[in-house]
Amino acid sequence: MSAALDLGFAVLDVDRERRQGVAEVVYAPGKTVPQIVAIAQALLERQEGPVLVSRIEPEDAARVGRSVRGWTHHPDARLLVWRARRPAADAIRLTVVAAGTADRPVAREAALVAGVLGARVREIHDVGVAGLHRLLARERELRAADVVVVVAGMEAALASAVAGLVAVPVIAVPTSVGYGAAFEGVTALLGMLSGCAAGVTVVNIDSGFTAALAAHRMSIALRGRR
Amino acid sequence: MSAALDLGFAVLDVDRERRQGVAEVVYAPGKTVPQIVAIAQALLERQEGPVLVSRIEPEDAARVGRSVRGWTHHPDARLLVWRARRPAADAIRLTVVAAGTADRPVAREAALVAGVLGARVREIHDVGVAGLHRLLARERELRAADVVVVVAGMEAALASAVAGLVAVPVIAVPTSVGYGAAFEGVTALLGMLSGCAAGVTVVNIDSGFTAALAAHRMSIALRGRR
Amino acid sequence: MSAALDLGFAVLDVDRERRQGVAEVVYAPGKTVPQIVAIAQALLERQEGPVLVSRIEPEDAARVGRSVRGWTHHPDARLLVWRARRPAADAIRLTVVAAGTADRPVAREAALVAGVLGARVREIHDVGVAGLHRLLARERELRAADVVVVVAGMEAALASAVAGLVAVPVIAVPTSVGYGAAFEGVTALLGMLSGCAAGVTVVNIDSGFTAALAAHRMSIALRGRR
Amino acid sequence: MSAALDLGFAVLDVDRERRQGVAEVVYAPGKTVPQIVAIAQALLERQEGPVLVSRIEPEDAARVGRSVRGWTHHPDARLLVWRARRPAADAIRLTVVAAGTADRPVAREAALVAGVLGARVREIHDVGVAGLHRLLARERELRAADVVVVVAGMEAALASAVAGLVAVPVIAVPTSVGYGAAFEGVTALLGMLSGCAAGVTVVNIDSGFTAALAAHRMSIALRGRR
Amino acid sequence: MSAALDLGFAVLDVDRERRQGVAEVVYAPGKTVPQIVAIAQALLERQEGPVLVSRIEPEDAARVGRSVRGWTHHPDARLLVWRARRPAADAIRLTVVAAGTADRPVAREAALVAGVLGARVREIHDVGVAGLHRLLARERELRAADVVVVVAGMEAALASAVAGLVAVPVIAVPTSVGYGAAFEGVTALLGMLSGCAAGVTVVNIDSGFTAALAAHRMSIALRGRR
Amino acid sequence: MSAALDLGFAVLDVDRERRQGVAEVVYAPGKTVPQIVAIAQALLERQEGPVLVSRIEPEDAARVGRSVRGWTHHPDARLLVWRARRPAADAIRLTVVAAGTADRPVAREAALVAGVLGARVREIHDVGVAGLHRLLARERELRAADVVVVVAGMEAALASAVAGLVAVPVIAVPTSVGYGAAFEGVTALLGMLSGCAAGVTVVNIDSGFTAALAAHRMSIALRGRR
Amino acid sequence: MSAALDLGFAVLDVDRERRQGVAEVVYAPGKTVPQIVAIAQALLERQEGPVLVSRIEPEDAARVGRSVRGWTHHPDARLLVWRARRPAADAIRLTVVAAGTADRPVAREAALVAGVLGARVREIHDVGVAGLHRLLARERELRAADVVVVVAGMEAALASAVAGLVAVPVIAVPTSVGYGAAFEGVTALLGMLSGCAAGVTVVNIDSGFTAALAAHRMSIALRGRR
Amino acid sequence: MSAALDLGFAVLDVDRERRQGVAEVVYAPGKTVPQIVAIAQALLERQEGPVLVSRIEPEDAARVGRSVRGWTHHPDARLLVWRARRPAADAIRLTVVAAGTADRPVAREAALVAGVLGARVREIHDVGVAGLHRLLARERELRAADVVVVVAGMEAALASAVAGLVAVPVIAVPTSVGYGAAFEGVTALLGMLSGCAAGVTVVNIDSGFTAALAAHRMSIALRGRR
Repeated sequence: MSAALDLGFAVLDVDRERRQGVAEVVYAPGKTVPQIVAIAQALLERQEGPVLVSRIEPEDAARVGRSVRGWTHHPDARLLVWRARRPAADAIRLTVVAAGTADRPVAREAALVAGVLGARVREIHDVGVAGLHRLLARERELRAADVVVVVAGMEAALASAVAGLVAVPVIAVPTSVGYGAAFEGVTALLGMLSGCAAGVTVVNIDSGFTAALAAHRMSIALRGRR
Repeated sequence: MSAALDLGFAVLDVDRERRQGVAEVVYAPGKTVPQIVAIAQALLERQEGPVLVSRIEPEDAARVGRSVRGWTHHPDARLLVWRARRPAADAIRLTVVAAGTADRPVAREAALVAGVLGARVREIHDVGVAGLHRLLARERELRAADVVVVVAGMEAALASAVAGLVAVPVIAVPTSVGYGAAFEGVTALLGMLSGCAAGVTVVNIDSGFTAALAAHRMSIALRGRR
Repeated sequence: MSAALDLGFAVLDVDRERRQGVAEVVYAPGKTVPQIVAIAQALLERQEGPVLVSRIEPEDAARVGRSVRGWTHHPDARLLVWRARRPAADAIRLTVVAAGTADRPVAREAALVAGVLGARVREIHDVGVAGLHRLLARERELRAADVVVVVAGMEAALASAVAGLVAVPVIAVPTSVGYGAAFEGVTALLGMLSGCAAGVTVVNIDSGFTAALAAHRMSIALRGRR
Repeated sequence: MSAALDLGFAVLDVDRERRQGVAEVVYAPGKTVPQIVAIAQALLERQEGPVLVSRIEPEDAARVGRSVRGWTHHPDARLLVWRARRPAADAIRLTVVAAGTADRPVAREAALVAGVLGARVREIHDVGVAGLHRLLARERELRAADVVVVVAGMEAALASAVAGLVAVPVIAVPTSVGYGAAFEGVTALLGMLSGCAAGVTVVNIDSGFTAALAAHRMSIALRGRR
Repeated sequence: MSAALDLGFAVLDVDRERRQGVAEVVYAPGKTVPQIVAIAQALLERQEGPVLVSRIEPEDAARVGRSVRGWTHHPDARLLVWRARRPAADAIRLTVVAAGTADRPVAREAALVAGVLGARVREIHDVGVAGLHRLLARERELRAADVVVVVAGMEAALASAVAGLVAVPVIAVPTSVGYGAAFEGVTALLGMLSGCAAGVTVVNIDSGFTAALAAHRMSIALRGRR
Repeated sequence: MSAALDLGFAVLDVDRERRQGVAEVVYAPGKTVPQIVAIAQALLERQEGPVLVSRIEPEDAARVGRSVRGWTHHPDARLLVWRARRPAADAIRLTVVAAGTADRPVAREAALVAGVLGARVREIHDVGVAGLHRLLARERELRAADVVVVVAGMEAALASAVAGLVAVPVIAVPTSVGYGAAFEGVTALLGMLSGCAAGVTVVNIDSGFTAALAAHRMSIALRGRR
Repeated sequence: MSAALDLGFAVLDVDRERRQGVAEVVYAPGKTVPQIVAIAQALLERQEGPVLVSRIEPEDAARVGRSVRGWTHHPDARLLVWRARRPAADAIRLTVVAAGTADRPVAREAALVAGVLGARVREIHDVGVAGLHRLLARERELRAADVVVVVAGMEAALASAVAGLVAVPVIAVPTSVGYGAAFEGVTALLGMLSGCAAGVTVVNIDSGFTAALAAHRMSIALRGRR
Repeated sequence: MSAALDLGFAVLDVDRERRQGVAEVVYAPGKTVPQIVAIAQALLERQEGPVLVSRIEPEDAARVGRSVRGWTHHPDARLLVWRARRPAADAIRLTVVAAGTADRPVAREAALVAGVLGARVREIHDVGVAGLHRLLARERELRAADVVVVVAGMEAALASAVAGLVAVPVIAVPTSVGYGAAFEGVTALLGMLSGCAAGVTVVNIDSGFTAALAAHRMSIALRGRR
């Protein structure tokens, strides 16, 4: 009946899946492989849905995979997954748009996490505003989505441009791509927050993960309304 | 057929209602009363839905109201409105939660703008985390919403606490409430961005308006799915 | 033979027109009306080209105008001018593009100062990236320019979008338009510096004046080459 | 009679135990193992109470331990100790509360240093505000303390929540846990300083050590009053 | 039985006195005189201990005083008080030390609020470290305290110097005194947080009020132990 | 007919040479050698002009060179080039001026990239303002240019000094040279933006590349006018 | 025998003249006219040398002057003085150099305070580095000084240029002149601290006063050595 | 007759010794050993006084020493020296005061460079203000100096305390000692700039070298006056 499970080095909130629709996600940095293994096993035993480890290095993923079966590893998104869901026919349609090649890992994290949680996901890459024709060529695909995640670094202009093209929710993810005045993503973050298109919301720098969870919250709201 | 209307001192995007589901909102600061009157009239003529002027001072609102009939003025939210929508029975249910008394104007702006655009809105005030019983007493009301807007200044802890209680989307609005290390809302903004609850999205400081528009985008997504 | 003229409260660099192609411009803030009058008179006597006072308030402009004849006053750009040049048929073609209504004063300063110094100037307003069709409708005009000045606040996405459309020099002017995370133009400045389009250069916040002088330097280079 | 002892590479304040109730603590970073050994020996000879080395790496701790006998090593708190005190029955009761797993090392440092100096210490882990039930389940334990140390990173909301539950002193320790907008603990620091609960005091980022010393100062005040 | 009292424009936490030992303090900025009057009356009716309004301007204090009897006004600390406590013989001894003349208002706020809540308070002014003899001449008085509040702006060196002289708790209050590189108190704040004396805790800029409440929390801990 | 070429890991904008006069430049950091090889080959096949890889480490350059023939490697500018243009007799004359020895790599990048694109380039090194005679000795060379790029770190005073000596465009490149208060180039950047000489434009920190592209845009404008 | 004089609202350090060679200087902002009068009278009675009030507004200066005879008022430096010293024939020779007209008030404060304390002072104005000939024309005067104070805002390049011309001490005073990226003097401050000329020292923004006192300390060192 | 010597990779200002009383000092970071050797040899041939390499790593120093004879290496100050001067009997007396053990390397750099250039230097270590008795015990030594260099990190309170004890010039050197809110020396820098003692000047973070050069400028001024 207790909602907290004490592993010695960490106390898990094993009630979260029931409360929030998704179990605690394991953030790998700072944890040892045995710790990740112990948490993953505990979650697999006590939760029913997907279990995810985020920001995990390839070698660590391999070592965890040897101890806990049934995983899928997505190295480009640094993601380790058990029990990925399959999107239902009426699942939320999420489009992830990324400005440049260097923004891909963050965009992939957003797309994969949302997919694992059950969304129907489409990805559009390399459509930065320095070549507007590339973005405009994808307008129809953008308009087909229920929610759009925009991933961009540097001045992050893509968020405003996309939000002007669609009427549905736009979640902006600033990335740490760029150098000098890009200040490790701070410029992109501030640009997205003060952008000129109405109704855009923003998450932390490089946090494709948070964008996916925000999209998942929308899918819960949608389901609750049918 | 032109989507742009040139008023001499400004060019209006009169196609926006069709494209985005809501007309351009007039941001009052920096505009003269005659300019606001001219824009409001042009929008009322060329758009069908609600027309809004935000951040308008009481005397200016009175002067605008004398020239353009049919307005409602909400001084606590500094908002002037024509043709407010009535929420349909199946409209989105939005709950706006505010931490303290000083956060009210921002919370009111979020609630009123969302309501004008057709949402069913509920407001909860003065439930800062320094007295957790106040927040927990409203848990049931929070869980009844399709989307929650959390308005808080200072350390903005309320966003994480609320996001742990509900599974639906949480839009966090940092406010410039506080002094010294609150840095005019920057601390609240950064706190909400790096908060410990998963899937929270954030808008600019004091921007109840952006939160309302983000909620409106969700209501468009919901409608599109039925 | 002395290149410096001591007015008691200031020493003028009366050699600058010869050296740089344009006389010292009088920056009004912090100077009294009698001081501005004295400097303007001294420059009119010792220089041959245009004389300009920038950032001057309307009442001060009126008072200066009473003492020094032959002026033109541009209140929207806070500019006072004597001996404006007329653009020659082969003068440089400058296009000034502004994102929003609030960016107009800065855009006007850039356009008027450049015009006074002899450029052929065109202005394009209200083409922010939240409505890309507005910008794309002006692509032909943009491509007709020898140099483009882009004026934008908030996330300043317009600079990258424009720079992707033209091959000629793009000078970006960030403005202090926006609130909260716009940080009085700092976000726009950093966004323009780290923008994704190649070869854009940037000037100080709200400095339409610097952009005009930079364009004038280009016109000198062009002339030197014929 | 001299209160300063010159070791060649450092001058020790060997009077501090008498003046402040606790000897100088050795901060390991930047010191060589022989230097740490020399300081520890000098302090053990000239002071009567506990001697501590903080932030020491495991290999250095092992090497120091080989030269200076009687130590205890706490690797999770990076702490090396000689002559730890045992808490008296009427010693101060300190509770250390930590928000997440990643905050443990800092919380452990606070708990262990305070314990070595004679406090009766209790630790509560993983009670971040994203799952308020976890915190509320520990309310009774919190209320049993004479002083509470709250350790949290990211938005550091835990400090306000705890301070609303207890009436005794609350010392808040921001940690560098988090990424992006967490800015290496700066967001947590500012959040704790501008928190909404009254009477909370704050120490430097990651400084469990300072919190323990502040608690020790309170225990001196308490003792002085009996 | 309800712990929250809704005044229409604000919801009071009327349970706080029982929970925390002191009622909610009314922060005047942003509130109208009628609002302050209503809150003060509500608190006087439902609480038993002192009622305080902080940061109140003289004219507002006079107007509030006309409606709610029994007040004392301390203009130098911008404080309005009802039902100030008298310190018991065994009350906590608090010494407030201020660096310079300009730090007085903040020091006075700390001293008066603590006194109203029942502490025995002593004040020491103008003992900045640029004249160390002034501080050293007061060493005996400093050592007689149970807790010391240090108030200083600019580089805030006084906190470290005082903390080296006493063994009891030191609460440091940075002030916004200074110009240029003092950055409105930020330099003092950072200096106090990274000071070289062990165990100092810090509160927000100019917040004499928070320091007084922190001292009050210590007095509660002391009382609980007897 | 498609302007975008999808390589799987990146989508190339192969229309850029036609639109902007120069192909996309490959920014090496974050790309693997096989990725760089693939992009370089694709560009060499589909573009006619020069192909460049910037910020490439020596070993990676060697490995790329083994797969794609016809390269030139400039290790001091971390640049790899195919099909460098030869400057025509009437090409733009660019002078690159650098303040100190540590600014050389950035200055070399600016000079080499501009040269590859067809400019006639001259370099002047070690003329920091702490020895003004060094700069003044080169005044004639400076005046012979059509455009000047100034590269400087620390306080970046050289930009203002040079801009006072020439009438043509001055593009300022701040460098990350310096320590402490130089803040990795931020001080130089801000100094150049707020410099006292009129009409200077600025690019991102260490971005010799952007300065070269800006100069190339000028050369396109010049050519368009003949 | 007491070195501290308590005026009720302030405690004066009346021993400072003996210890430091100059009495406490009265910083006017934040003090009432009666307070300034009381302090000035106390200092005139108990000190022998000059008495100064800095940063005083004209009307306040007039009111103080009516109560305390023998004053000189320098409105351009916001300075009120009693008992100014006359420079001895062998007094230190100080040259104050200012970059622009807007820097004059700060330069005047430095020059006048140093003069009142006994230095032989020369002033050079309007020699910003954007017109190097102006500075070089004054090289001989600069070389005649024992110490040079350089006053400049914006990018503050003048400090490095001057320090390259003289071998004696250079004290740099950044000013808040400029806008946007000048950040109220912060850019000038950082530029002077990280300047490329060796051995320059820096004082707080706009603090002509501190520079004068630093020069006075040098004059004490010089005198001590004869 | 040329004042500049071109080594290919750097242009030396070989006139500086004549102009400034000391040759260019070689800053080692970023230079190869052969480059340092070449510069040192060139300076030894063309200058008469001391030649210094600063911030050099031990192995590099050894390698340079093998090629250029007659050196002295000070590893604790990372300094390599040829032709150190011996202080004359009437040389300037410099006292370097350091707050803590971790400040030693910077203090040593200041002391050694000043000594090499001819000053009579005394060092005082470990006299931080957290133990004021340590500082006061050295008051007499401090008063015997012609100029004092104060080296301190963290809150840098030592500068104000020392400047209150002596009347001669005080040069403050902030160090990067500390963590968290010490911000790599920024807090110390700002504290020293806004300190409460009059007439202190400040140099860049960790720049013992600049302090030594500033002291050398004073010794030149002193010599010029005899």
